[in-house]
Amino acid sequence: MTNATHRPRGRHRVLVVGGGFAGLRAVRGLGGAPVEVTLVDRQNFTLFQPLVYQVATGALSPAEIAAPLRSILRKQRNARVVLAEVTGFDLEHRKVVLEHLPNQRGGTTLGYDTLIVAGGSRYNYFGHDEWQADAPELKSLAGALDIRSRILAAFEAAELETDPALRQAWLTFVVVGAGPTGVEMAGQIAELARDVVRADFRSADTRTARVLLVEAANRMLMSFPAPLSHKATSALERLGVTPMLNHTVVGVADDSVAIRGPDGEVAETPARTAIWAAGVTASELAARLAEAAGAEVDRSGRVTVGPDLSLPGHPEVLALGDMVRVRRADGAIVPLPGLAPVALQQGRYAARLVRDRLLGRPTRPFRYVDKGDLATIGRSKAVADVKGLHLSGFAAWVTWLVVHLFYLIGFQNRMLVLIRWTVSFATRGRGARLIVRPPEHPPATTPPIGDPKA
Amino acid sequence: MTNATHRPRGRHRVLVVGGGFAGLRAVRGLGGAPVEVTLVDRQNFTLFQPLVYQVATGALSPAEIAAPLRSILRKQRNARVVLAEVTGFDLEHRKVVLEHLPNQRGGTTLGYDTLIVAGGSRYNYFGHDEWQADAPELKSLAGALDIRSRILAAFEAAELETDPALRQAWLTFVVVGAGPTGVEMAGQIAELARDVVRADFRSADTRTARVLLVEAANRMLMSFPAPLSHKATSALERLGVTPMLNHTVVGVADDSVAIRGPDGEVAETPARTAIWAAGVTASELAARLAEAAGAEVDRSGRVTVGPDLSLPGHPEVLALGDMVRVRRADGAIVPLPGLAPVALQQGRYAARLVRDRLLGRPTRPFRYVDKGDLATIGRSKAVADVKGLHLSGFAAWVTWLVVHLFYLIGFQNRMLVLIRWTVSFATRGRGARLIVRPPEHPPATTPPIGDPKA
Repeated sequence: MTNATHRPRGRHRVLVVGGGFAGLRAVRGLGGAPVEVTLVDRQNFTLFQPLVYQVATGALSPAEIAAPLRSILRKQRNARVVLAEVTGFDLEHRKVVLEHLPNQRGGTTLGYDTLIVAGGSRYNYFGHDEWQADAPELKSLAGALDIRSRILAAFEAAELETDPALRQAWLTFVVVGAGPTGVEMAGQIAELARDVVRADFRSADTRTARVLLVEAANRMLMSFPAPLSHKATSALERLGVTPMLNHTVVGVADDSVAIRGPDGEVAETPARTAIWAAGVTASELAARLAEAAGAEVDRSGRVTVGPDLSLPGHPEVLALGDMVRVRRADGAIVPLPGLAPVALQQGRYAARLVRDRLLGRPTRPFRYVDKGDLATIGRSKAVADVKGLHLSGFAAWVTWLVVHLFYLIGFQNRMLVLIRWTVSFATRGRGARLIVRPPEHPPATTPPIGDPKA
Repeated sequence: MTNATHRPRGRHRVLVVGGGFAGLRAVRGLGGAPVEVTLVDRQNFTLFQPLVYQVATGALSPAEIAAPLRSILRKQRNARVVLAEVTGFDLEHRKVVLEHLPNQRGGTTLGYDTLIVAGGSRYNYFGHDEWQADAPELKSLAGALDIRSRILAAFEAAELETDPALRQAWLTFVVVGAGPTGVEMAGQIAELARDVVRADFRSADTRTARVLLVEAANRMLMSFPAPLSHKATSALERLGVTPMLNHTVVGVADDSVAIRGPDGEVAETPARTAIWAAGVTASELAARLAEAAGAEVDRSGRVTVGPDLSLPGHPEVLALGDMVRVRRADGAIVPLPGLAPVALQQGRYAARLVRDRLLGRPTRPFRYVDKGDLATIGRSKAVADVKGLHLSGFAAWVTWLVVHLFYLIGFQNRMLVLIRWTVSFATRGRGARLIVRPPEHPPATTPPIGDPKA
């Protein structure tokens, strides 16, 4: 690839890896700056990750929570998008190695003056990647669509099944991990079974569905204050979810999940649908970057960056978002939650740092401004922790709704989502309950363009 | 499966196979009748097939042109839905054989008093099914999503390609078949390349894209009067489509399409994207049903039914829609186009026939009322043939818009589609330009639920 040689000579080249909250915000923050920005991502869209679970339950369509990167950056003339996977960093020669381009012509490299890496995070399977086939992850769009088809197909199977035990296995849903995504998903499945699809079936009573929410810690929503965790637990129980705190998944098969309780005993629960939302781990890019820079990596795979988000010994390399932890000037490591606001603030900070450096202005260390934390539990219920103010119930839910609509990218999406939600709320329906399986032949003309976090 | 034994004894059982325009209309037409209706389909949704090509170009999301069968029939208490594939007909014992149920427990049978079969049609590959991998069909939702990803990935590949000849191959799109679907698709790709994505790319000039529309006949839109065909041809040419009439595809590879011209010579055109919309053939159910009844099948696989849409010797078995041709009482076979209005009218007729027979009322033969024919070519252009009145240009396009919105199932869909179209029209944007590939592991918990026509 020789695109890099077309650039006007002398312009400062900023290479941004990853078009999520952090990376895209960094790119946009450089709009109008005298730099040349290249955004590299394996996907052609940015994803509003906090609402992915709504795609998994059929409440929203993919296009409502995803926007093509090229459309977003169409008017930013100093930015271009490259659809590729980053496979290596050559920090000495200031280059990254790319592969998996849609034209299948092998690897290439891209040079930079400033590198910004924002690869995000993914779920890991506690070292058991083989569980993924029976418990898809709820983080990517592809995972959410897979989960949607499985949940809907499970209700269909229950409708046809006449053996009560087998039917119950089809109506048992295990959600692994009680962070915001797991909590929201469990609540939505319970609502789906009790409310939304109940009248759709003639033989199966979907109200008998069991939703197990398995969490290794002793409370759910660990990033929230304890009282809000307890409120969320009660609210979920009222919806029909069974929280299983201090429990760990130790095995996943296509018709059962093995769960170890606090007493150490393992029980096999017959369940045909399992959903994975546990074990948050930094993107593999963090490990590759840390190796290239000789930087530290923590247990969750996050690379340690300095107070200005740069890598030790490499002020020209910044890393942002879920895949980093920040060491302050005094040497203390500040634990920051893996949330969209952190990523957005770091992206904005990185853009400002690049601008300030170019102008020779002094720079300040990154400082996170905590604006609060939100999680929904079901229709019209949520918990919120806004600057120490604890909200729950309907008020928290309205806050959640407004915040999420506000941050959704693009006017059209916001309108569509608002209409969808209004209709869903009024009719208790779900608009996008489609079981769509990929065609059985492999795509031949173009290579798979998958999820960078998978 | 013993569901069939739960039915209240003595009620007339109507079994409808296929939830497309014809089958679903028949089910709905039996609402409130003293019958017990079972609708069998391999998919859990009904598809608004005339707009599938809009999903393929990213103008619409799948949920906007598909509605879950269970939601549609939720309030029709005498109807139930079974997700299964019909593999055989036992007309003597009045049973159908089902397989491929989501619970993977093998085959079963369902009895009936009246059987209504509406399996629709599919595209065939002139006996070369191996072409499908490189030229996906534009009829199912899965096919449309596959095509969408390929078209968008082709633009991405062109952006990265520096060899002019190879770039041109990525920017060459071959649409096979110039019926309404092929014509609409070709026009939309041309618009996409010239208008919509042009500003998204920095290296590739998408305006140089070539769209070849290959048709074996001597004019496009054969179901329309010749003057409208010619108008459509000119309009497509102005959009940048190259119509290739009297041409036949004789080979498809991942990087080229072999096309035989009217002089018999074959040329290999370098093209990375091919789309199949040719060779309309009746569903395999037609052949199975014809064999069971000893009925005739024509060259396109359609079964011949009597004036009341019943099979010869089996008044209790009706067949409808794209998979049949009707023999009038005088023995003449009436050619009917494979269009939604025909299917809808036959579905309504079948429901009325069942009601009339139950009441002992006399029945009349089916008669098709031709309300006209419509096809769009691009933004604000269309051709229409309404009872001999030929429209083209903007007036035809508005007619097309109103008719299609009117027939879209469900209030929510209509609202969403109207908003999408308004925004698309105003901004020349496309909301759903997402490349989503399925996860690479096979779904293990549930079997694939594919497209009944694939």
